[in-house]
Amino acid sequence: MKNEAIGVLDSGVGGFSVVSSLLKELPRERLVYLGDTARVPYGTRSKKVITRFALQLTKFLLSQKVKAIVVACNTISSVSLRKIKTESPVPVIGVVKPTVRIAVKKTKIKTIGVIGTRATINSGVYEREIKALEPQMNVVQQACPLFVPIVEEGLASHPVALLMAKDYLGIFKKSSVDVLILGCTHYPLLKKTIEKTIGSGVEIIDSSLPTAKALKELLGKESLLAKKSEPQHRFYLTDVSERSAEIAESFLSQPLPTKFKKISL
Amino acid sequence: MKNEAIGVLDSGVGGFSVVSSLLKELPRERLVYLGDTARVPYGTRSKKVITRFALQLTKFLLSQKVKAIVVACNTISSVSLRKIKTESPVPVIGVVKPTVRIAVKKTKIKTIGVIGTRATINSGVYEREIKALEPQMNVVQQACPLFVPIVEEGLASHPVALLMAKDYLGIFKKSSVDVLILGCTHYPLLKKTIEKTIGSGVEIIDSSLPTAKALKELLGKESLLAKKSEPQHRFYLTDVSERSAEIAESFLSQPLPTKFKKISL
Repeated sequence: MKNEAIGVLDSGVGGFSVVSSLLKELPRERLVYLGDTARVPYGTRSKKVITRFALQLTKFLLSQKVKAIVVACNTISSVSLRKIKTESPVPVIGVVKPTVRIAVKKTKIKTIGVIGTRATINSGVYEREIKALEPQMNVVQQACPLFVPIVEEGLASHPVALLMAKDYLGIFKKSSVDVLILGCTHYPLLKKTIEKTIGSGVEIIDSSLPTAKALKELLGKESLLAKKSEPQHRFYLTDVSERSAEIAESFLSQPLPTKFKKISL
Repeated sequence: MKNEAIGVLDSGVGGFSVVSSLLKELPRERLVYLGDTARVPYGTRSKKVITRFALQLTKFLLSQKVKAIVVACNTISSVSLRKIKTESPVPVIGVVKPTVRIAVKKTKIKTIGVIGTRATINSGVYEREIKALEPQMNVVQQACPLFVPIVEEGLASHPVALLMAKDYLGIFKKSSVDVLILGCTHYPLLKKTIEKTIGSGVEIIDSSLPTAKALKELLGKESLLAKKSEPQHRFYLTDVSERSAEIAESFLSQPLPTKFKKISL
């Protein structure tokens, strides 16, 4: 079981920001990634449809005999995690809880900001998880639906990113948060623009490193850490276009270690 | 056969800009609309995936016993029309040919601009159809991938629309076209912004009216025009969210005559 792969489940290629941290924190683990690029984005869809798609992705990863599943996508983690856990005989870890734990530790003024897709924000999961850890905490949330297409179109450094950041993030200036959770895999690529907009003094937290560390802890506890060196990863997408690798590499900050294989669900 | 419905096939709710013209030109016809909101947008996907999805939509419409199919989506019309025609026993009409016929008539300087999704522009279909009618014609094309999410997010009058229009449409100033085809159902909602950007003297053509007129002509020729009054339309979507009706009504420019029904494909 130890040498079985870790499944990484995502709505597209944004999950490569989580893969980037997994490669650093768990270099001996073999990864099987599945991104649903034929149906991305999920963040604008209804809960029912998101969960139906997410369970199809889970089924595929389980057929690949993974020892654990990481739900890299914030939207799926927010909307469908409980259902995925019900269906999965192996441990499942989402991005919300590990990120929330760090945010609650970091805030000094007990006020945390959260940005995400419309589905993530509407789910209210970040607020519930934060208050479950500390009921006195204030949470200020904002959906930023245009951020995903801006990043996917390679426009993170274009004036359009700053224009929309000013529009979406004004609420955090008024509410004076000292910690902001980037509740979407795409947002780390907008980190500089977000910092410029909300000013220094706000610590920005993204999900990838806390999630990789939480997985490492979980695998250690269950004696599931792999001992292999040079693991052979497999990266599956439901649609592969000319731009898929380019977008994935922008999240990974390095060349892809293996090519994409296309599958149909 | 005359009183059977007209099927309208679309990747989402943008097709309601075509429905708007169908209701005006063919008020006695019953419409069965199917929009694939669970998997929209199509314009960023590969040809293979677009065609696979489009054939699933076609199959559903045929099961509803339609007498003709209108492919309202420019991306599907550009990429998958031939395949849909092969599968369909009833006449199929796309938006490209009817629009191109008008554009070729209107241009005085024999130079036509076309804007659309990445899949539509990469297909090269507009250029091929224009040159099939008149080989000496010049065609200047530009993909505008952020226009669809801008319209879907209700930001057509937000400064972001003008910013991206300036970015995408600069090419038409340099090439001095006198006709511009809006090669996507979403773009009519950006017409004012586009006009402001490229200046007067360029005639802007959208697909909805030419397509409705071409369908009317086709039904007349085949003796398929309905004689019913007050037809009962049916509008199906593969995902219905709180915002679906709102977005559809922005394309229709009037309240929806019937509620959406959700189906899974």
